[in-house]
Amino acid sequence: MNRAFLLDQIKCKKSFLCVGLDTDINRIPKHLLKLEDPIFEFNKAIIDATKDLAIAYKPNTAFYEALGPHGMESFHKTVQYIPEDIMIIADAKRGDIGNTSRLYAKSFFEYYNVDALTVAPYMGSDSVKPFLEYKNKWVIILGLTSNEGSFDFQQQKLESEKYLYEEVLATAATYGHTDNIMFVIGATKSDYIHNIRKIVPDHFFLVPGIGAQGGNLQEVCRAGINDHVGLIVNSSRSIIYASDQEDFAAQAQLKAREIQEEMEEILISNNII
Amino acid sequence: MNRAFLLDQIKCKKSFLCVGLDTDINRIPKHLLKLEDPIFEFNKAIIDATKDLAIAYKPNTAFYEALGPHGMESFHKTVQYIPEDIMIIADAKRGDIGNTSRLYAKSFFEYYNVDALTVAPYMGSDSVKPFLEYKNKWVIILGLTSNEGSFDFQQQKLESEKYLYEEVLATAATYGHTDNIMFVIGATKSDYIHNIRKIVPDHFFLVPGIGAQGGNLQEVCRAGINDHVGLIVNSSRSIIYASDQEDFAAQAQLKAREIQEEMEEILISNNII
Repeated sequence: MNRAFLLDQIKCKKSFLCVGLDTDINRIPKHLLKLEDPIFEFNKAIIDATKDLAIAYKPNTAFYEALGPHGMESFHKTVQYIPEDIMIIADAKRGDIGNTSRLYAKSFFEYYNVDALTVAPYMGSDSVKPFLEYKNKWVIILGLTSNEGSFDFQQQKLESEKYLYEEVLATAATYGHTDNIMFVIGATKSDYIHNIRKIVPDHFFLVPGIGAQGGNLQEVCRAGINDHVGLIVNSSRSIIYASDQEDFAAQAQLKAREIQEEMEEILISNNII
Repeated sequence: MNRAFLLDQIKCKKSFLCVGLDTDINRIPKHLLKLEDPIFEFNKAIIDATKDLAIAYKPNTAFYEALGPHGMESFHKTVQYIPEDIMIIADAKRGDIGNTSRLYAKSFFEYYNVDALTVAPYMGSDSVKPFLEYKNKWVIILGLTSNEGSFDFQQQKLESEKYLYEEVLATAATYGHTDNIMFVIGATKSDYIHNIRKIVPDHFFLVPGIGAQGGNLQEVCRAGINDHVGLIVNSSRSIIYASDQEDFAAQAQLKAREIQEEMEEILISNNII
């Protein structure tokens, strides 16, 4: 998926919502457990209910890997089920030396054929570049994450006076361009987003942490929106676990619509639609 | 596997060799391709040929993930086939926010039941700690890697005058203790290992990069060995691809024995055996 198509989808759906498919076998409605592949059935229902409201889905691979190879079958079926015009982000936080990252690229961009992959930056350029050899695929590099542990290293100050995450953003931006690199920027850090926007003014940010993790959509957008939107905002638990009863998909739709409508207002007030 | 058992194995086998099972379907002998699971059959033969010479096996998950869920079946069969007294290191370089790392821990420490997992440190303490809740399991945190990209961030100098990788070693060491944390230290950086030993004198280092990646065993050991050995040295390609003919396992054994004998001399000259 290229940037122009993504922007078209955002304008068309009046939404920059990503639904996080962090599907936990212990949290899905009990009536699904008697089906052959409860994880896939849950995802299918969530996708059917939210596909007109979301411009991206983000399955976090850990939830699927926890169930072994069978879980990865559920992951595969899920990504195959997602409509072609919706971006698929595999939230896998991979990264290794070049010849090994090339195999992760093969896994996610060829075998599973997702549009985007989250990547950890610690190993530097050659750990990221193999992913950038694929046309119309995206690497989403961890910039500043929303967890407590981000203080350990990401927010260490360098000799240059920059924080490590600022250096990561500035350097990793040079690995590719705004059509194949995005950054993960934690939503509970909206104070920081304003500053981050100056470092990478044109890149898309994938912003997790709205809802259950405590981020505020209005604040994130005030700090991070640009002329080309530049934000994909993810919500996982608050949508997919809106109900643990048989009405889970309908409740997920209501919650997604609530966020989409808030996003529509933001897009209008920023003269994007 | 606990530290005492690992040390016993090293003394018993006179070896601290880890064989990297980076098994690439495009590089294994052609005669295996007609079998039902060529990757597993290759690994099985390599394990049979080297199990008396190696104290650890390290499958890099990227090689298995590249083949989709079926590849993870080969991974599963491989780790089940490895004898109980040999450490299994899943080289997966995972790491995510706490509740997600917990699922990776479930995947690798419960479903696949490996002994150790490599973890990327960028997200800090809560991305690592869920792995440390498992008794007799190990987290192997990326410290200083051997690739060119390590200069991008790992070797950036902090305001404190320390390099980032030094800060990662010192801080990550506090997440657990010497019985559940090791560090990945690239072997092509033996100049650095002497310094790193001062920061974390008692931890085991997993040292990749001997052989194909250009590291030198003697130099690594001179700089990194401690009273409790403290080194697990990995070789992948130079052993498993010693031959691409029907004699591949015998040739792998010869190469592994050559390294083991060099390690035996090193253990003797350091008064460890």
